[in-house]
Amino acid sequence: MYYIGIDVGGTGLKAGVVDEQGKIIATAKCPTGVERGHEAVINDMAHLALKAVENAGISMDDVKSVGIGIPGIEDHARQIVPFCTNLYWHEVPLQELMKKVIDKPIFVGNDATVAGLAESVAGVSAGVKNSVFLTIGTGVGAGIVLDGKVNDGSHGVGSELGHTIICVDGELCTCGNRGCWERYSSATALINMGKKALKAHPESLIGKDGEDKIEAKTVIDAAKAGDPTALEVYDKYIYYICAGLVSIINFIDPEMIVIGGGVSAAGSFLLDAIRAKLPAMVFYKAMPYATIELATLGNDAGIIGAAMLGK
Amino acid sequence: MYYIGIDVGGTGLKAGVVDEQGKIIATAKCPTGVERGHEAVINDMAHLALKAVENAGISMDDVKSVGIGIPGIEDHARQIVPFCTNLYWHEVPLQELMKKVIDKPIFVGNDATVAGLAESVAGVSAGVKNSVFLTIGTGVGAGIVLDGKVNDGSHGVGSELGHTIICVDGELCTCGNRGCWERYSSATALINMGKKALKAHPESLIGKDGEDKIEAKTVIDAAKAGDPTALEVYDKYIYYICAGLVSIINFIDPEMIVIGGGVSAAGSFLLDAIRAKLPAMVFYKAMPYATIELATLGNDAGIIGAAMLGK
Repeated sequence: MYYIGIDVGGTGLKAGVVDEQGKIIATAKCPTGVERGHEAVINDMAHLALKAVENAGISMDDVKSVGIGIPGIEDHARQIVPFCTNLYWHEVPLQELMKKVIDKPIFVGNDATVAGLAESVAGVSAGVKNSVFLTIGTGVGAGIVLDGKVNDGSHGVGSELGHTIICVDGELCTCGNRGCWERYSSATALINMGKKALKAHPESLIGKDGEDKIEAKTVIDAAKAGDPTALEVYDKYIYYICAGLVSIINFIDPEMIVIGGGVSAAGSFLLDAIRAKLPAMVFYKAMPYATIELATLGNDAGIIGAAMLGK
Repeated sequence: MYYIGIDVGGTGLKAGVVDEQGKIIATAKCPTGVERGHEAVINDMAHLALKAVENAGISMDDVKSVGIGIPGIEDHARQIVPFCTNLYWHEVPLQELMKKVIDKPIFVGNDATVAGLAESVAGVSAGVKNSVFLTIGTGVGAGIVLDGKVNDGSHGVGSELGHTIICVDGELCTCGNRGCWERYSSATALINMGKKALKAHPESLIGKDGEDKIEAKTVIDAAKAGDPTALEVYDKYIYYICAGLVSIINFIDPEMIVIGGGVSAAGSFLLDAIRAKLPAMVFYKAMPYATIELATLGNDAGIIGAAMLGK
């Protein structure tokens, strides 16, 4: 059997047909056009799924289910998407509207959560029973896989690791709390730390293209080049990441923690720094704990993970 | 069938016979005598179990398994207790030594973890699929129950919620990190906060019995009596507790969070304060989330939970 996965982004929709092993067979895509309202977007999603099936050269009889990854959450009990900020959705009956076009079991998950599932089916954590996936980009999202299944909690509000608090009375977060992990460990945080350090050390390589051009990569590249200011910023940033990782280990103790998202493009420079700092921070220093790995599926994770919700 | 539960403390050993419903039928106890070394202590534990069986008026044929709750952890893979600070244990083959006396399946768990299991079998979280139990006393321990089973992680090092970091660069913890949750939310933390506040406000009721006599209860009683300094300390303390609770909700999203340990003796004064502050701090404010409840089993939780490891 095959599974349809739909990756819903603020600017683009992608649908794909995925096989039992989590391999994408065919895809189809189109712009999201959020301004048209949710009914038009969901109608496009359904027809995009049919198009992907056509592109795969199979029929809907070969399809077991449709999974949808959204930049928000579903209230599973009510089968309603209560809100989805980037899409301007509020109380949307996503499953019901999809079923008007496609009469198959429909599953809905958070985009970071399904990306974690994708890695655990066809990526770096394949075969790993318990894993935590992190996507470190503008914010920090996460997916928790326990016993091979997505675990987003009893009410579907779990795995929001970017909003666990690592600094009480710390920086104000968009969620209203202070000190959320993503205020310290996202690409946005690294950029802000870089800008602040540049003010104190205007000679730093961080500023080579001007303050307005500072991206996470700018700070990371400057650190790679041995710039002392950038190295200091990067070391602190890695500490902030590790503070969250050590909490994950002390909390749920997974076999593996997988790091994806824009910042993971730093590759071994990121992984080596984390692996060097973490051992001194774990609670049971003489016991084995989670390995830290980089995600391998990249942008495909959205389609694959959404599809695998139905497996 | 019946289950034996053994509660191993630094000063006392308790064994009990527990029925299928988690009810204690009979008990036996003796001092721990840690100075005698682990072999003597474990031998006593085994004979205490036999004594409890005798007291229950049953035979060992009626006993399915023996569960042991220790103030430390077991490396389940090696069936070794790598260390147990309060007992001065290091690399102790607990199961093997118990089996010399009692030839039954042996299970070993952390004392806070088994207390959480006890509450989920016979206490306030009975019938709740996913719950997190917290024991707030000198430190902060925890037990995570998912799908009705203890979840202490892939390597047995999970559920150490007292050592998740809520304040990077914060107070130094005995574990070597800075900003562990228990530095801010334990009884010890409340006492330290009370002492500090008393220095600035010597007129506070917190000091009515002298600075040396300040316990968690002293600060709580002063807050109950409306002392402004104590109220300010207590409000901050509740904020610190809520910072951890909100992280638990955003992380694993249980149905219920159960609070036990010495501080929970404050009863509704604690519960009401938490329930008043938490709603504004959860991430998905329009979605249902964990209820917060007080533990009900008290000291019996150690025996019951240890016994239920074998169920």
